[in-house]
Amino acid sequence: MPQETLQPTPGGGLCIAWQLRGKPVLLIGGGEVAASRIVHLKSADAHITVLAPRDGLHPDVETWIKTGVIQRYIPALYKDTSQLVQDDGSDYTMVLTAIDDAQLSHGVCQWCRERRIPVNVADVPPECDFYFGSMIRRGPLQVMVSTGGRGPRLARKMRQCIEAALPERAGDAIMQVGMLRSKLRHVSPDPQDSAARMSWMTKVCEAKTLDELAMLDEATAERWVHEDWPTRRIPSSSLTSLSWPSSMASILASYLSRVIIVPCSRDVLSFTLGATSTGLAVLAWSIRK
Amino acid sequence: MPQETLQPTPGGGLCIAWQLRGKPVLLIGGGEVAASRIVHLKSADAHITVLAPRDGLHPDVETWIKTGVIQRYIPALYKDTSQLVQDDGSDYTMVLTAIDDAQLSHGVCQWCRERRIPVNVADVPPECDFYFGSMIRRGPLQVMVSTGGRGPRLARKMRQCIEAALPERAGDAIMQVGMLRSKLRHVSPDPQDSAARMSWMTKVCEAKTLDELAMLDEATAERWVHEDWPTRRIPSSSLTSLSWPSSMASILASYLSRVIIVPCSRDVLSFTLGATSTGLAVLAWSIRK
Repeated sequence: MPQETLQPTPGGGLCIAWQLRGKPVLLIGGGEVAASRIVHLKSADAHITVLAPRDGLHPDVETWIKTGVIQRYIPALYKDTSQLVQDDGSDYTMVLTAIDDAQLSHGVCQWCRERRIPVNVADVPPECDFYFGSMIRRGPLQVMVSTGGRGPRLARKMRQCIEAALPERAGDAIMQVGMLRSKLRHVSPDPQDSAARMSWMTKVCEAKTLDELAMLDEATAERWVHEDWPTRRIPSSSLTSLSWPSSMASILASYLSRVIIVPCSRDVLSFTLGATSTGLAVLAWSIRK
Repeated sequence: MPQETLQPTPGGGLCIAWQLRGKPVLLIGGGEVAASRIVHLKSADAHITVLAPRDGLHPDVETWIKTGVIQRYIPALYKDTSQLVQDDGSDYTMVLTAIDDAQLSHGVCQWCRERRIPVNVADVPPECDFYFGSMIRRGPLQVMVSTGGRGPRLARKMRQCIEAALPERAGDAIMQVGMLRSKLRHVSPDPQDSAARMSWMTKVCEAKTLDELAMLDEATAERWVHEDWPTRRIPSSSLTSLSWPSSMASILASYLSRVIIVPCSRDVLSFTLGATSTGLAVLAWSIRK
């Protein structure tokens, strides 16, 4: 727990993954900013209602209305707060505005805050309960780059650096660790064991490489939770349940990937390639001579 | 707007930076998980109340109580929902529990949801309105790695890859772009210009390198918003307001950093180093011969 992270730095937010699966979200506006909001909302499997006139819809928004990506489309201009409730009179879980009218947006913000409905008014930080960031998605892995509203465009540049650095099999590893975690919960559901479960999962993840975890199969996971977990032991190898040839191939693949994938090792690889090329060039030249 | 990001992938959340500056948050529990929650809350400058008996406090939590990092400490066991309101009877903005009692935690969750207070019950996904991720912080830059609750421990491994890939001056660049953005807002506060402002900021950020942005001074930013923004022009150079020698030094520094900082260019550098080393070795050997 590094102490220095406790120094408050201006502009920080609580970075969280808000759970919206199937929940009704209202988005006011249909332009470019609205389109980017829809990409965010969709990655959380929200149930999206868009309120915006047909005139001025972003082409992507138009497509998503046609293809059902947007569950409900109300082709109207936002005028007053009576439009902020669903047809059955119930509230939305979240409201976002992406319109150019600051006064109307302000009204939306106030109405939502009185009802404790999370609200985001595009480009007006004080009227945002939360900010968006730039996103990377690899299966279950999500990476958010946030600049605290200081440089949303700059966040995209950072995202490119990060995308290049993420291991190929990151998504797979997370899926398989999720599978292991749910098996563990099944075998040992007692909330009293929560801390022990978390600690064992941590140790397992630390002891294994990303590739070993990406290749974890159901049978091996079963063995770990039935044979190793009861004594809180760290499984010695993820691969013993595989047949010999595939075992060897896996170990080799895992070894190679450890050398190649870890970013700083790329330097070593590049260095070796450079050294070898020059060596070969010198050799070719001396043979020719 | 890439279409493929619209394919719903299980386990995703809406990744956001929740704004908590100065807002009252209740954390029930004082163990290891609570300690990690405090690091998160502190990075958002929340006003933290910890409710937990003295017995069993994590050493870090004990320190943070003494040093005032935690604004309020209630040395008591959580027993019932009467403890979920502040002394003046008002609600907390957010409630987190990190205790081993599933039944008590469930009660907290229900009580909060009835009042629309965002709630997180550690290690019980269905009772979390939001999940935490693994965090990187560089000044105003925050990067969250989320696995949708599937592999929180694994997220730490990803974090290490990302930390190695982030440009050195990322934090500075964001601070200076934030400065430019607020000057732009000052010069052109009309909400009608919101889209034009966002578009110009995007173009400026895209046209400049991270290092040019990191070195942007107040005088240059003033010139950009007064001379370039009115005609929506992209400033031709960030450096013309500097004296000649420092200008040259900056251009050189910017060039070198572009070669060295961009991750994939490290490969080129390593390759060159490798090639040069072998070349020198061959040279040394042939001279000696």
